[in-house]
Amino acid sequence: MNGKKKVCLVIGAGRGIGGAVGRKFAEQGFHACLVRRSDGEQLKKLVDAIVEDGNESSGFLVDAIEKNKIEELIEQIEDDIGPIEAAFYNLGAQIGNKSLGETSYKTFERGWKLGTFGLFRLAQSLLPKMVARKKGTIIVTSSTAAVRGNEQQHSHAAAMGGRRMLCQTLNAEFGPKGIHIAHVVIDGAVEAPDTLGKMLGEQAFEKLVTERGGTNYGLLIPNYIADTYLHLFNQHPSTWTHEIDLRAAKDTPWWNTKKADNW
Amino acid sequence: MNGKKKVCLVIGAGRGIGGAVGRKFAEQGFHACLVRRSDGEQLKKLVDAIVEDGNESSGFLVDAIEKNKIEELIEQIEDDIGPIEAAFYNLGAQIGNKSLGETSYKTFERGWKLGTFGLFRLAQSLLPKMVARKKGTIIVTSSTAAVRGNEQQHSHAAAMGGRRMLCQTLNAEFGPKGIHIAHVVIDGAVEAPDTLGKMLGEQAFEKLVTERGGTNYGLLIPNYIADTYLHLFNQHPSTWTHEIDLRAAKDTPWWNTKKADNW
Amino acid sequence: MNGKKKVCLVIGAGRGIGGAVGRKFAEQGFHACLVRRSDGEQLKKLVDAIVEDGNESSGFLVDAIEKNKIEELIEQIEDDIGPIEAAFYNLGAQIGNKSLGETSYKTFERGWKLGTFGLFRLAQSLLPKMVARKKGTIIVTSSTAAVRGNEQQHSHAAAMGGRRMLCQTLNAEFGPKGIHIAHVVIDGAVEAPDTLGKMLGEQAFEKLVTERGGTNYGLLIPNYIADTYLHLFNQHPSTWTHEIDLRAAKDTPWWNTKKADNW
Amino acid sequence: MNGKKKVCLVIGAGRGIGGAVGRKFAEQGFHACLVRRSDGEQLKKLVDAIVEDGNESSGFLVDAIEKNKIEELIEQIEDDIGPIEAAFYNLGAQIGNKSLGETSYKTFERGWKLGTFGLFRLAQSLLPKMVARKKGTIIVTSSTAAVRGNEQQHSHAAAMGGRRMLCQTLNAEFGPKGIHIAHVVIDGAVEAPDTLGKMLGEQAFEKLVTERGGTNYGLLIPNYIADTYLHLFNQHPSTWTHEIDLRAAKDTPWWNTKKADNW
Repeated sequence: MNGKKKVCLVIGAGRGIGGAVGRKFAEQGFHACLVRRSDGEQLKKLVDAIVEDGNESSGFLVDAIEKNKIEELIEQIEDDIGPIEAAFYNLGAQIGNKSLGETSYKTFERGWKLGTFGLFRLAQSLLPKMVARKKGTIIVTSSTAAVRGNEQQHSHAAAMGGRRMLCQTLNAEFGPKGIHIAHVVIDGAVEAPDTLGKMLGEQAFEKLVTERGGTNYGLLIPNYIADTYLHLFNQHPSTWTHEIDLRAAKDTPWWNTKKADNW
Repeated sequence: MNGKKKVCLVIGAGRGIGGAVGRKFAEQGFHACLVRRSDGEQLKKLVDAIVEDGNESSGFLVDAIEKNKIEELIEQIEDDIGPIEAAFYNLGAQIGNKSLGETSYKTFERGWKLGTFGLFRLAQSLLPKMVARKKGTIIVTSSTAAVRGNEQQHSHAAAMGGRRMLCQTLNAEFGPKGIHIAHVVIDGAVEAPDTLGKMLGEQAFEKLVTERGGTNYGLLIPNYIADTYLHLFNQHPSTWTHEIDLRAAKDTPWWNTKKADNW
Repeated sequence: MNGKKKVCLVIGAGRGIGGAVGRKFAEQGFHACLVRRSDGEQLKKLVDAIVEDGNESSGFLVDAIEKNKIEELIEQIEDDIGPIEAAFYNLGAQIGNKSLGETSYKTFERGWKLGTFGLFRLAQSLLPKMVARKKGTIIVTSSTAAVRGNEQQHSHAAAMGGRRMLCQTLNAEFGPKGIHIAHVVIDGAVEAPDTLGKMLGEQAFEKLVTERGGTNYGLLIPNYIADTYLHLFNQHPSTWTHEIDLRAAKDTPWWNTKKADNW
Repeated sequence: MNGKKKVCLVIGAGRGIGGAVGRKFAEQGFHACLVRRSDGEQLKKLVDAIVEDGNESSGFLVDAIEKNKIEELIEQIEDDIGPIEAAFYNLGAQIGNKSLGETSYKTFERGWKLGTFGLFRLAQSLLPKMVARKKGTIIVTSSTAAVRGNEQQHSHAAAMGGRRMLCQTLNAEFGPKGIHIAHVVIDGAVEAPDTLGKMLGEQAFEKLVTERGGTNYGLLIPNYIADTYLHLFNQHPSTWTHEIDLRAAKDTPWWNTKKADNW
């Protein structure tokens, strides 16, 4: 369809960070390859919106954590579309609050597959290609759970803690080879109907957006997150960011408790 | 064999931290259940040494990360020997330095099973029993890799990063229920022939011990680590430690680089 | 007054951590030198209680952060009583919640003098003596504010953040010389009438103790903190702790927020 | 001299981060107020270079840590030039490696004045004005020493540790009021003749730049640091960064040690 062109790959592309990043990079001349597990209709809308802007995009309905899927996808894109210069690992592992008893082995393992192993598989498949080209960027969306383990977050926090350490070891090996890997700590709720919206339910999500979204500056807005991702992509190799947090102005930092509890 | 008695369970018991902790707790009147994957002869020696001291111990040759093994073991011990009041999760996931290309999917998954999932399974099986008794302690041996991802440590660091976050989420849920969970960052090499010795090879290990061991204060000594584990076990619930580091006096902290590189 | 004897020096000794540590170490055969700024009557009671137990203690009514006071005190004690083998830097810098506008330059500077500079002065005066003797321990009471900066804690957090980094640089230089320096993160409220009691007022403090103290396991109890300080003192140089947290079982870790705010 | 115009204030402006940031923001239409303690000739060159580009700049030869200087400067600039919309606190406190014995009280206090107290004074003077205008950005250049205390860095690390915590408490209070405060961890050496150059000496600095500078990607380059500062300034209040690291691609992260020392 579109000849060899620089590609950005977004694994986990819904109406949130992933979709916004895809669109932003498409505007910069990338062919945006958007990957999500389900809801082909929504995926088509995202791709179409980019194409309507006059930019390039393809959608892939793939469950990235299934065996060989992510590996095959990377081969296919590199063969058919072009070299992946930027990859965004944007799969979340948040399942809401669950006590230990409510967290099955299967759930915990799935958390790891989404949170940690999927990134490892992406790295294994994509980094050799990037190293051969002596350039490439992987930006990893992460969360507060990567740096503190909150109550009822057994699966999510373990997955994100692993993800963060993996980003550091990948950096240590691949930074000197010219590959930029950045771990982004999203410290707060994102105005994203496909993730937060589904977790909270439509009504509660609407209420949250009304109360804290937009210029209430209480929720992170995907399009502005994408601005920072673009900046990270454009950083000069003498001056790379490896970890960065993002939080809404009126939100409370992850370590802040109520005033009476200062020690 | 020996009636209902308070038990300490050591998962990962060789001639290192695990063995020393088992012996120390046996001296305090616990029946020490020592678990290791292989080398039944070495296991027998550890158990025998405790029994010769006039204390109680049983050995279990079990690969804890195999399906159902850890779960069955806990049931068996609680049924046959007594309530597990202290458990030590002491399985390491260090495989030496491996580049990303040298780290297979299987290796990475095994790291997670040893480093993170095994602790989750222990927690699932044992914590309900401890909660019912309103007391219990789980001490988790961890490493520097839980807090920084060094070069060539992809598997180990991801596993330990997950382990650390899991300890925090377990604490958040089970601390208020009277269960003490402590994450111990072993920041340095341990004078342990079964782990470090095997990784380095016998000769290199001997050399290291001669140069840095004992009163050279460059290696951690298992028996003294066990002293701290005993102290953690004995802490009053008003005053628990959740994270602690241990490092030899003459070793360099994990964050210290050579002098010329201070920024 | 009592011949050359090993001494423990407690800077900041009220009816809280300092007093409890002094008493605990006196029971171990140390001459406990207790230092506080004001309330000579209370100081006398602490000293008398130790002496009545058959142990040794002296009290010093000194404002440690005044020019030369801490330096002179160390000389005086080493000359008149004996070598200081253990020193506890226990001066707090918590002033309650103050907005930036409410925090005067003088207050901020005083926070630094108490929180950071006093420890530096203690180190300058005492460490050369300890190094000459090839042994010694400095245990530094610190707080959650050393690792996160909460709202309205400008003075306290800046002071404690400096204190923590100073403990690390002292460790790096003096650990290899045989001196053990430990930074203790007290993560919660302490049942201490002289500090928390004065900050909250008598009635609110009583209420807090009734609701959360003792076997409610919601407040840290000084005597048990002292147990951990004693353990740290007794650690073998192969196996030292440099940072440790302490928190009550039913208290919330510093990074835990309410359930609805998990990201 | 030039009517009311939006101003950026750079405290600590030499031929390094400060100078580059001033120039970058002047290109964006700010009047760049450059402040440094000494070397009026160098300061004049920086200002002249900006003016020759057709942009606006003023130089101030002021020792910011002297009594009232920073306060008066802010009043003067706001009165004479315009509202300070962006302030960069760029004073370093690095004095090279010094043992504890080599670090005088005066040096340690000076470190605090540069590292911590100066930022507090800037905040006290400037933030009320920014709050009244409901906008403003303070970007604080910091260093690895803010997160780990290396050997022989007593003064620097204590100062930077305090600086970091202060940034967090300022954020907590002023973020919700619309003021963005960012703490930038510069994790490596900067190609800056006025700071690193003076510390190392001219020849050693030249050698370092030849070996590791430019496209060797071993040194941070001021102009690219300024790009990230500009991005931080432009972030939308829904999506602010509060802490970010910057490091050269071929440099070693602050926590990475040599391979043999992985635990």
